Amino acid sequence: MDIAGNLLIGASKVQGRNGTTYALDAATGEQMQPAFGGASAQDLDTACALAWAAFDRYRETSPESRAQFLEAIAGNILDLGDALIERCVRESGLPRGRIEGERARTVGQLRMFADVVRDGDFVGARIDPAQPDRKPLPRVDLRLRYVALGPVAVFGASNFPLAFSVAGGDTASALAAGCPVIVKAHSAHPGTSELVGMAVQKAVKECGMPEGTFSLLFGSGREIGQGLVRDSRIKAVGFTGSRGAGTDLMSVAAARKEPIPVYAEMSSINPVLLFPHALKTRGAAIARAFAQSLTLGAGQFCTNPGLILAVDDPSLDDFVRTAAAALSDIPAATMLTPNIQRTFESAVGTFAAQPDVNLDGRGAAVTAPNQGQAAIFSTTDAVFRDNPVLQEEIFGSSSLVVRCKDLDSMRELVEQLEGQLTSALHIDDEDHEAVRPFLPALERRTGRILVNGFGTGVEVGHAMVHGGPYPSTADGRSTSVGSLAIERFLRPVSYQDMPDALLPAALKSENPLKLNRRVDGKMQAAER
Amino acid sequence: MDIAGNLLIGASKVQGRNGTTYALDAATGEQMQPAFGGASAQDLDTACALAWAAFDRYRETSPESRAQFLEAIAGNILDLGDALIERCVRESGLPRGRIEGERARTVGQLRMFADVVRDGDFVGARIDPAQPDRKPLPRVDLRLRYVALGPVAVFGASNFPLAFSVAGGDTASALAAGCPVIVKAHSAHPGTSELVGMAVQKAVKECGMPEGTFSLLFGSGREIGQGLVRDSRIKAVGFTGSRGAGTDLMSVAAARKEPIPVYAEMSSINPVLLFPHALKTRGAAIARAFAQSLTLGAGQFCTNPGLILAVDDPSLDDFVRTAAAALSDIPAATMLTPNIQRTFESAVGTFAAQPDVNLDGRGAAVTAPNQGQAAIFSTTDAVFRDNPVLQEEIFGSSSLVVRCKDLDSMRELVEQLEGQLTSALHIDDEDHEAVRPFLPALERRTGRILVNGFGTGVEVGHAMVHGGPYPSTADGRSTSVGSLAIERFLRPVSYQDMPDALLPAALKSENPLKLNRRVDGKMQAAER
Repeated sequence: MDIAGNLLIGASKVQGRNGTTYALDAATGEQMQPAFGGASAQDLDTACALAWAAFDRYRETSPESRAQFLEAIAGNILDLGDALIERCVRESGLPRGRIEGERARTVGQLRMFADVVRDGDFVGARIDPAQPDRKPLPRVDLRLRYVALGPVAVFGASNFPLAFSVAGGDTASALAAGCPVIVKAHSAHPGTSELVGMAVQKAVKECGMPEGTFSLLFGSGREIGQGLVRDSRIKAVGFTGSRGAGTDLMSVAAARKEPIPVYAEMSSINPVLLFPHALKTRGAAIARAFAQSLTLGAGQFCTNPGLILAVDDPSLDDFVRTAAAALSDIPAATMLTPNIQRTFESAVGTFAAQPDVNLDGRGAAVTAPNQGQAAIFSTTDAVFRDNPVLQEEIFGSSSLVVRCKDLDSMRELVEQLEGQLTSALHIDDEDHEAVRPFLPALERRTGRILVNGFGTGVEVGHAMVHGGPYPSTADGRSTSVGSLAIERFLRPVSYQDMPDALLPAALKSENPLKLNRRVDGKMQAAER
Repeated sequence: MDIAGNLLIGASKVQGRNGTTYALDAATGEQMQPAFGGASAQDLDTACALAWAAFDRYRETSPESRAQFLEAIAGNILDLGDALIERCVRESGLPRGRIEGERARTVGQLRMFADVVRDGDFVGARIDPAQPDRKPLPRVDLRLRYVALGPVAVFGASNFPLAFSVAGGDTASALAAGCPVIVKAHSAHPGTSELVGMAVQKAVKECGMPEGTFSLLFGSGREIGQGLVRDSRIKAVGFTGSRGAGTDLMSVAAARKEPIPVYAEMSSINPVLLFPHALKTRGAAIARAFAQSLTLGAGQFCTNPGLILAVDDPSLDDFVRTAAAALSDIPAATMLTPNIQRTFESAVGTFAAQPDVNLDGRGAAVTAPNQGQAAIFSTTDAVFRDNPVLQEEIFGSSSLVVRCKDLDSMRELVEQLEGQLTSALHIDDEDHEAVRPFLPALERRTGRILVNGFGTGVEVGHAMVHGGPYPSTADGRSTSVGSLAIERFLRPVSYQDMPDALLPAALKSENPLKLNRRVDGKMQAAER
């Protein structure tokens, strides 16, 4: 499967005719072949029509066949072999080891959702049996299951060209839920997108899924991206990217004749709270681990530690010095795109120009084009409180240490923070009582609270929340990583007094799918 | 506890000073005592401040104490005795039997949510234990629970002065989830609202809950209602009412600095599909049952059958004749308010004036002020398709029969309908094959699909969905009736490597709350 610059519309490969773009080699800035043709309004319409036509059949495919389909996508991605890895490394500027790890994560996610589909608990089957003799009125037979929302528009992210892109978490969870997917590729890695798209397209064919189950479009965010969200056949949106682009999509979705849910992951500075005992006894080790986390992937993580809070004392001075020294030893890394690199440098400059903000150190000097030079700043709680610029995310390896007068002032400052994907606490046993009053404030504004670590590792599991209150996401009621993500693309439907012959398999009395079901409110395990 | 026209703000009873309103006796139009003072912006601010102050403590109350609190509310409502029933009958114009039934439903809902809280499955506890030896990287310990969203604004509905009002389903589910509630009372039944509000206020005190757990405000929808939704301390909204008012609240919520979820139940015409065999063999019986359902509660049900679809043939003529005759035998009933009655009559007039729409019959003549006279219309599929006015909800006993050319045309027409709370199918075994192709179309646009009945009975259980795609509700991903409604007021939080001493009880290793928990993705029943 060679990169040809094609749109993938259902089973077709089509050269788009609405403008031409090229990938850039992130490390050299060199333009890469081939040209990618942009989708037209007609291409978008065709993809939506196919997705809509596929929906009723795809959502009722058996759990086993949908699981096999997800596994086939995973297998086809692996089959792309080194061609995928090499293209992805060049397009993203990320190191090979990272891209190989990200491929493993992507494939693992697809396989996890295959297990989730086979397990069947996501169907949420419930049965309240009839009680014909109930007084004063007989009780009807009521059965409930969750059904897929409809075709989903997924926006590839710049910073995870595999795991949050064409066959990433949003696509995997939507397909698992029974929703056809139309991906709007990110312009930073079109070749990677086309390769992975072809792997999905091939799996659709191999598994006999309806052709509209998947399409991949290239094009502008405003024209094709917003056009997708505006289309009446699209019923939900998965997005990872900037706050501006995310809130634009939220507005488009809310203004539709039929508003639809937007799951946008947007912006987070991921506060790290250093507590006194831990800071005093382990400050230097934490500082070095912090420098590693801050520079991972050139700082281009949604969960990058952009804010450090601690009580101002000599241990904090040591922390800042050690962190700055550690940063200066870490080589500068290539950023995803020239535009992202320019925006990063400009944001660092803006921070440095804020009154009473100190630039405490920078990473190793850049040695090649498009590299980001890490930065660490510090200021006081009073300055931070009064300057909203300091609460804005800088996408890249930049972090701000806020020196707080005392723990009370630090807690007040936490109460001023916007919603966050993660909050990290560095604590010793001796800090527990100091930590307790922070927990409610953190729970109210964070998706994941972690102890003695940093948020940059996001485990794909059943207990993961990668989400959080606005503006970290558009809607804090869900997660974009882990098995729980499937719930974002489902809604409940109840069936009353429906003859067994007409009930969906999930709710038939004999339980042919062997689902665990809630009967009269109590979970009943299936005999398997 | 006497009706005094007070706002209930936390533990206080306060006479509002922002204008004065009175209840009207629905049957006579007579103004009832006492005067109700409207809330000021300051009152609203006080209620929100109290709710916010209560939130962290209230949401962490033990399951048992929260369950007892819900049961205390139920008990206090019953203790209001006949005073509540009599006031409610006068304010609503609904018959005593109905109001007694609605009280039983309201109390039953509160008790069901007490059971749901004790059961604890709503916490959604998940644990992925650490795997320190995993390669290439150790796995962290991850634990997840659902936490309450925050203070909730609840809007009382006109048509269920008890079950969808001050201590109705929205309030019960929000309180069960751990959210303080501020109710904006409906102007149609302020005395009922104050009585029930005092029952809740008393339970707050008796159970030692923080005083801001509950407040009740009277005032204008625009000033106090939208003001609540705009307040940054309110984190979700429960609403039952008109499409206009609901979409206004959606806009206000979306325009906030931090947008919040709005659960608005708004508008539904609840299509009833008559299939050929059933219509032919049982048409007359269905017609009589339909007339009963249409006029229940003067037709003022969200699930009122406002649209009948069937293939045009002589059996359908018989059906319309029988339904019209049955309607003319049912006495006209008092409507909730003079304004609702005027709007109903005007909407019936608008329908009657549409081209090619036939008025086939009306209910028994009115005999007193403020009564609604039922109406049944008919038209053809072609006329219905081209006239969007005919798809608008008429709040009251009015229904439109659409004569379809054949089953294909009937199915196309279903595909033109907006989202609905319910769809009802009248079928015999012989109709099953004809029904099958309709089911996907109905699932995509309906919250509850029912067979050989009408949607006007809404069972409070575990498998009920009282919800549906837009515009039947603002957000079709949930239900406002039944135990599943608690999920609307929750969001997931994940805890990574948190010491047991700091974990919430729901996630501690020894499982002190005896919750069923999902461990490594598999449900593990608690030992109880």
